[in-house]
Amino acid sequence: MALLYKADPQRGERWRQLFAAHAPDIEFRQWPDIGNPAEIEYLAAWQAPDDLATLLPNLKALLAISAGVDQLNLSALPPHLPVARMLDPGITQGMCEYATWAVLSLHRDMLRYRAQQQAGAWEARALVPASQRRVGVMGMGQQGKAIVKCLQGLGFALSGWARSAHQLTGVECFAGPAQLPAFLGQCDILICLLPLTEQTRGILDLSLFEQLPRGAALINMGRGAHLNEADLLTALASGQLSGAVLDVLGVEPAPADHPFWQHPGIMLTPHIAAMTQPDSAFAVLLDNIRRHQRGEPLNGQIDRADGY
Amino acid sequence: MALLYKADPQRGERWRQLFAAHAPDIEFRQWPDIGNPAEIEYLAAWQAPDDLATLLPNLKALLAISAGVDQLNLSALPPHLPVARMLDPGITQGMCEYATWAVLSLHRDMLRYRAQQQAGAWEARALVPASQRRVGVMGMGQQGKAIVKCLQGLGFALSGWARSAHQLTGVECFAGPAQLPAFLGQCDILICLLPLTEQTRGILDLSLFEQLPRGAALINMGRGAHLNEADLLTALASGQLSGAVLDVLGVEPAPADHPFWQHPGIMLTPHIAAMTQPDSAFAVLLDNIRRHQRGEPLNGQIDRADGY
Repeated sequence: MALLYKADPQRGERWRQLFAAHAPDIEFRQWPDIGNPAEIEYLAAWQAPDDLATLLPNLKALLAISAGVDQLNLSALPPHLPVARMLDPGITQGMCEYATWAVLSLHRDMLRYRAQQQAGAWEARALVPASQRRVGVMGMGQQGKAIVKCLQGLGFALSGWARSAHQLTGVECFAGPAQLPAFLGQCDILICLLPLTEQTRGILDLSLFEQLPRGAALINMGRGAHLNEADLLTALASGQLSGAVLDVLGVEPAPADHPFWQHPGIMLTPHIAAMTQPDSAFAVLLDNIRRHQRGEPLNGQIDRADGY
Repeated sequence: MALLYKADPQRGERWRQLFAAHAPDIEFRQWPDIGNPAEIEYLAAWQAPDDLATLLPNLKALLAISAGVDQLNLSALPPHLPVARMLDPGITQGMCEYATWAVLSLHRDMLRYRAQQQAGAWEARALVPASQRRVGVMGMGQQGKAIVKCLQGLGFALSGWARSAHQLTGVECFAGPAQLPAFLGQCDILICLLPLTEQTRGILDLSLFEQLPRGAALINMGRGAHLNEADLLTALASGQLSGAVLDVLGVEPAPADHPFWQHPGIMLTPHIAAMTQPDSAFAVLLDNIRRHQRGEPLNGQIDRADGY
């Protein structure tokens, strides 16, 4: 029995060591050296080969090594193949660090201080207490809940929105399209952590920005395709938005002439909020293989109809 | 009986409202309109007049409206006049926010990403888990302890150093000059929160930087005079330090030709980490007046020999 790894080759070497040390019954193979395809029962991958059904006839599960699975063409996969996303605690930790940094950067006016440093200007701005800064999180899954917990420790006024209803102590929760306007109307800082689906593609557009309080700020840690980039420029130019921190873009890497690079109202980072850490992710992946072998449901299993 | 306020005039108006609403027995006067000097028993001030003893013959206590009192010439004050510094929870909250932001900025390579954004370069760098990032705090008073607690929530490996011994769960504590080298030798990120005294002036110099691990980073939230600015440039140029976040400078505002403005290894903010917030500070100040009236010791009373 073998597992085929098809993702970053350098990190693959670490995966190989971890399997050898902790799961010697599972033969680790790294793409494109797949050996006898009939022996491969598990695929750990960022992207799946197009001809998966014919290439790996005995495949039992696809274990994504990413928190989102929007990079997979789910409709091209065999319909009954279980697909799981990666619930690596290392990813959650990275997302918490990035979200805390991004919220504090916007809360404490660091876009303006960055510009002031470039201009050689020493000018203090008024300070708003965290308890008066309303931070709203779109997407209340594992990561959204962990981020809310981090931000609670700093005293922010918190709310969350998701497709379905959630309950969290100290967090005002909104659910579904009907409650979206009420949620947006009270977000000084909006964090997008949504999965990318046909329902959420392009959700961060001018009509959404106009429902935020004037001067609100945006953090996009979801996917680049959540954001209408031209609409963000419009909202920043009009003052409807005061700033944005973006870790993802529609085209990555961003081309050299992308208008966000030099925009004083945008902090841009190259998709680094979180990275799958083999050492913490291995335990999660192996646990999912063992669960499958025992006939139990996978952790993080995708609903093929919902797409996440 | 009257209190004389001698600090930022704009915030003074808010102080006046708070005294009128909550302590009508204390007449609030704002410098330079001191009225009959003999009636003034308390001075709430950033800096004290030079001729304090003759100007205010019945002064009973000097209540600084700042967390540090290094701006006061303590030796010029009447020897038995009690002097207290401001233990405003609003200051502590601001310091926690700034320290968390600064640590995350250095931990997550945001100096490099700032430079990459300016250059239009999309390049992800390897991520170090917070548990492997050793953050050391110099100064373990009210603010140091609060900051350590915030950083513990994010999973950093924490240590502290102070003149005297402290004990905190989960924090390796070092004390006194003898243990300073051992403390410094294990700080990947060093935060200076020390009071400014003759013992700590210029403490952040090349000999201290050389005791840190190569590539360590510095956060100065104490006073500008803690730092030898030329030595910082030397340590950044050699790679002994990888970056610095500075909220204070030797001369504030920094002159336009100061080399820190344009330095890619320095994030510079204009002394904004924390500001005394009249609404939270008022309760602390009034409590200290009532304590004094009852014959109790002041909170935050300065040891005139130690200077803090």
